[in-house]
Amino acid sequence: MKIDPVQNCPFNSDCTPNGDVVLSSRARLARNLEGFPFVHRASAPDCNEVTSLVHQICEGEENSVSLEWVELDALDVLTKEVFVERHLVSSALATATHPRAIAIGPELSRSVMVNEEDHIRIQSIRPGVQLQEVLRDVQELDFRIEEFIAYAFDDQLGFLTACPTNIGTGARFSVMLHLPALRIIKDLPKVQNACEGMSLAIRGYRGEGSKVIADLFQVSNQVTLGYSQEQLCAILANDFLPTVIAWERKARDTISEMQKDTLEDQTFRAFGILQNARKLGLDETLKWLGAIRLGICTQVIEDIELKTINKLLIEIHPYHLRWKYGKELTDEEIPAYRSKLIREKLSA
Amino acid sequence: MKIDPVQNCPFNSDCTPNGDVVLSSRARLARNLEGFPFVHRASAPDCNEVTSLVHQICEGEENSVSLEWVELDALDVLTKEVFVERHLVSSALATATHPRAIAIGPELSRSVMVNEEDHIRIQSIRPGVQLQEVLRDVQELDFRIEEFIAYAFDDQLGFLTACPTNIGTGARFSVMLHLPALRIIKDLPKVQNACEGMSLAIRGYRGEGSKVIADLFQVSNQVTLGYSQEQLCAILANDFLPTVIAWERKARDTISEMQKDTLEDQTFRAFGILQNARKLGLDETLKWLGAIRLGICTQVIEDIELKTINKLLIEIHPYHLRWKYGKELTDEEIPAYRSKLIREKLSA
Repeated sequence: MKIDPVQNCPFNSDCTPNGDVVLSSRARLARNLEGFPFVHRASAPDCNEVTSLVHQICEGEENSVSLEWVELDALDVLTKEVFVERHLVSSALATATHPRAIAIGPELSRSVMVNEEDHIRIQSIRPGVQLQEVLRDVQELDFRIEEFIAYAFDDQLGFLTACPTNIGTGARFSVMLHLPALRIIKDLPKVQNACEGMSLAIRGYRGEGSKVIADLFQVSNQVTLGYSQEQLCAILANDFLPTVIAWERKARDTISEMQKDTLEDQTFRAFGILQNARKLGLDETLKWLGAIRLGICTQVIEDIELKTINKLLIEIHPYHLRWKYGKELTDEEIPAYRSKLIREKLSA
Repeated sequence: MKIDPVQNCPFNSDCTPNGDVVLSSRARLARNLEGFPFVHRASAPDCNEVTSLVHQICEGEENSVSLEWVELDALDVLTKEVFVERHLVSSALATATHPRAIAIGPELSRSVMVNEEDHIRIQSIRPGVQLQEVLRDVQELDFRIEEFIAYAFDDQLGFLTACPTNIGTGARFSVMLHLPALRIIKDLPKVQNACEGMSLAIRGYRGEGSKVIADLFQVSNQVTLGYSQEQLCAILANDFLPTVIAWERKARDTISEMQKDTLEDQTFRAFGILQNARKLGLDETLKWLGAIRLGICTQVIEDIELKTINKLLIEIHPYHLRWKYGKELTDEEIPAYRSKLIREKLSA
């Protein structure tokens, strides 16, 4: 594989507008090929035929999508798990045994998973608020792929998908939000109500069913039927985000004014622990990084760049650490290397 | 008052043998005057008469005890509470309203409380293992006072005291132990059993009924009847302490060998929090100081002196902070000044 799998951190939002609140934007289209059973009912030969077809599009003469083709079974565990940690490959796809693949853009933002829940899952993930951009990315891929393949489509229902919640546009848009101040002033219910009102789902850092870590929240559209892709994207981009970003910023200002000493205390404690611990767990580290992130956004800490923290949110994951420090690292050794990385990055 | 109430930290055990495990040694004798009702049954004139008598001994022509006489009602709150934090005055005595006083040696180690639970409570407290020395201190004061005053004494029972548990010698010997390693290797039950076998009481940092903080334990004799002062002292000094000190040291060695990385992690985390927090609670700070103390004793930290931590264990108390930074400090302001003091002392 020619691609560097640890480049271009998708959370590195510091150069994007509203990157102080929104870490990343993501779009995903679920598509299936006409005439093939859905993946969960497909035989190995069926799956093979699907990957072959998509492979031709990606690497054949007609390759206009500029993606690199990677058979997941041909991939070493380390790279595969790095992709999982970057949300390029679902852990279901990584650990499955049927024929499956991923096609990835050289900059890692665009990718196509083949034979995950659906035959094709087109995805784009970019730092900060870039919902229009990720929509454009996936639409472009979608149109090009469709030039070569017939999608399973119903005039009434739209695109047909393995899970009924994806039927219609097959589109899901999501953003990763950092809302520490709204949590501190106990105003998160307001966000939850807003989500409910707009049929958006709000989840923890690791998606469905995961707990909230580091005040990171994934917000995405719940339904795809009855709206166009543009409409679904606009709900997040135009209706939801401006409101929530304003709320979080106002909350940060409130805390800066009213609870300055507590904010400083919490920020510097997190910094002190990260700078001094010799073994750091993943969730704990995410939590302290979240606290420092708030400290940077409120000017409590001025000598650490936001992008350092944004990148660390990804780089502290076990396989990213193995990528950097040695693939043989055991689970028991990881916390020590995590603290080593953190100390290096925070003191730089 | 001519005495500096914050001098000579009683926990400053770093120059005493076994000071790595034993912070301080203390002896106390409970005495009552013949012909006067016990304090809880005494009238104000009774109490006044007792204080007058003791006052004469301390400041009269025959003053051979070298103590300074301090009427508690004449003392400002700040000094009074500093004495409480140094265990020179019980909080019961500080807040009582009947006539009462304290006579204190210039170096603060020796003192006589007048009209606490008993008419007279002679006390000596010294850093580290100095049980023979504190016994000598209180005996010396006891003999000198007895030259002028007749004690309530019964040939069968010995010295009579307000509380039956003190009858006999009226003596209580206690040591303050730091047992972090035995807690970590889960071997504290061994210490508890040893105490039980020797009729010793083991308590938390703040004595009876208090929770365990910072792995600090107060161990003292439970009964005083049927033993001589020397025997009671010897149980602690000869039977109990050598065993427990050896146990704790062995546990520290074990941790240093077997759990070096965890030990370093815990030590440096404590250091990181203390160095960076902007508001520190009392119990929390005691806990982190305890962790650093273990780190110093196991050579994990080498650039902080044990005496710095020993002194801080006392200096972080609210009235000591008010003594240093301003008596007007409110309870809300204390945690910020505590962290200020800590940062100053740890970075020095």
